[in-house]
Amino acid sequence: MHELHHETEPRALRQAFRRGEPPRVTAGLAPGYTQANLVVLPESSAFDFLRFCVRNPKPCPVLEVTDTGSPEPRLVASGADLRTDLPLYRLFRHGELVEELPDISAYWRDDLVSFLLGCSFTFEQALLDAGLPVRGLEAGATYTAYTTSLACLPAGRFSGPMVVTMRPMLPDEAVKAVRVTSRYPMAHGAPVHIGDPSAIGIRDLGQPDFGEPVELRPGETPVFWACGITPQVVALHSGVDFMITHAPGHMFITDVRDEELALR
Amino acid sequence: MHELHHETEPRALRQAFRRGEPPRVTAGLAPGYTQANLVVLPESSAFDFLRFCVRNPKPCPVLEVTDTGSPEPRLVASGADLRTDLPLYRLFRHGELVEELPDISAYWRDDLVSFLLGCSFTFEQALLDAGLPVRGLEAGATYTAYTTSLACLPAGRFSGPMVVTMRPMLPDEAVKAVRVTSRYPMAHGAPVHIGDPSAIGIRDLGQPDFGEPVELRPGETPVFWACGITPQVVALHSGVDFMITHAPGHMFITDVRDEELALR
Repeated sequence: MHELHHETEPRALRQAFRRGEPPRVTAGLAPGYTQANLVVLPESSAFDFLRFCVRNPKPCPVLEVTDTGSPEPRLVASGADLRTDLPLYRLFRHGELVEELPDISAYWRDDLVSFLLGCSFTFEQALLDAGLPVRGLEAGATYTAYTTSLACLPAGRFSGPMVVTMRPMLPDEAVKAVRVTSRYPMAHGAPVHIGDPSAIGIRDLGQPDFGEPVELRPGETPVFWACGITPQVVALHSGVDFMITHAPGHMFITDVRDEELALR
Repeated sequence: MHELHHETEPRALRQAFRRGEPPRVTAGLAPGYTQANLVVLPESSAFDFLRFCVRNPKPCPVLEVTDTGSPEPRLVASGADLRTDLPLYRLFRHGELVEELPDISAYWRDDLVSFLLGCSFTFEQALLDAGLPVRGLEAGATYTAYTTSLACLPAGRFSGPMVVTMRPMLPDEAVKAVRVTSRYPMAHGAPVHIGDPSAIGIRDLGQPDFGEPVELRPGETPVFWACGITPQVVALHSGVDFMITHAPGHMFITDVRDEELALR
């Protein structure tokens, strides 16, 4: 469709978004490179949030925490700017989503700390390589996520339910998918649930809270992985004063290779 | 020798140390249960230290961070008291080791945060189970650790060299040891170096900085893993105002099973 389809390098993609390229879901872009969820918080709440991540490593595997005030994630994407290099951001104030925007420079402050959390796009390529279905990619670069009844372990002001992504698989595929995704603890790792959606509080698979529904074919069972959208639901649940995140599906593309991440 | 040799339950061992049982190295105690390095810091420097851990996950894999002021590690040892339940502690002030003591109740403050970091004792049982040598255990419950020339990634005031443990192995054993220990990223994971000690700044294997030297037999190569003593050397290197840690080898014994840790 447009030039982004031809870009496979993280840096070029980040620069395209920085230049104002129209926002798009980053699933399938820069295959083999790790994508990340973004959370930006004032330093006054950053320690509690990092404690929250340590207590909930499946939804919140921490790839990098920046120095306070620095928008550059030096370890995973030297030279990048977290204020401009994602396709789309969300601004939360007092526990409400108040704005979705392509650039957060206007909101930047010297006391902000940025967190990059691993993302399931990392293991989707590994699933494909193992001959396993990733229906969201088949359906055209989307994802399917639900808010569950699984409670995260709280830390300070941060508490709320876990968000999960879902991929339909045959039972033998689900077993292989557990093995494949276990290699990527920094990208949510093994599933948190297999089977009955109602056991984790999901009423209707056809109505995901984020992304698009995908087809469940005969014999398939839903397989659920912890999801990095969790902090956004936690922001709403906890009434967090000020938080900026990526918009779901619109991730930060790092320079780290997925295989490098698996060997950390 | 004394009653501790017969205790295999974490809770009983913690209570024995709480009662004032003479300090001893915890290697080989409560086999199958995860032991942990302890770091206690004022909240004012705790966020920087947690950033340090996130940036240096091999020496500092975070098992738990307590709520500020609470001496109870609720997730890994409900009911335990980190002020009394370790055999021996170290107090650092202004970048100096000032005291070694069996109880830190007298120094406790409401603004203290405790960090529990994974420990290589976790994977030593797995090495033994795989038929691999752990000379420190053969030699009678000791360990062998060196300060290296490998620099940790700094965070705020925290910077310094990585400390490593060493186990001698034949080359084919070293290959198997990489595979075995890779299963335990929360206990330092795979080795950071194999072979020539001088490549990581170790001049004399016969003179470890911590613990006791072990015999290197014909054909064996030294294999090095990141070590949780690292924060103590960082405290000295960084001139940290106030930090309490375990004394090397004298770990906190948790209720978590090593195999449970491998599946996190």
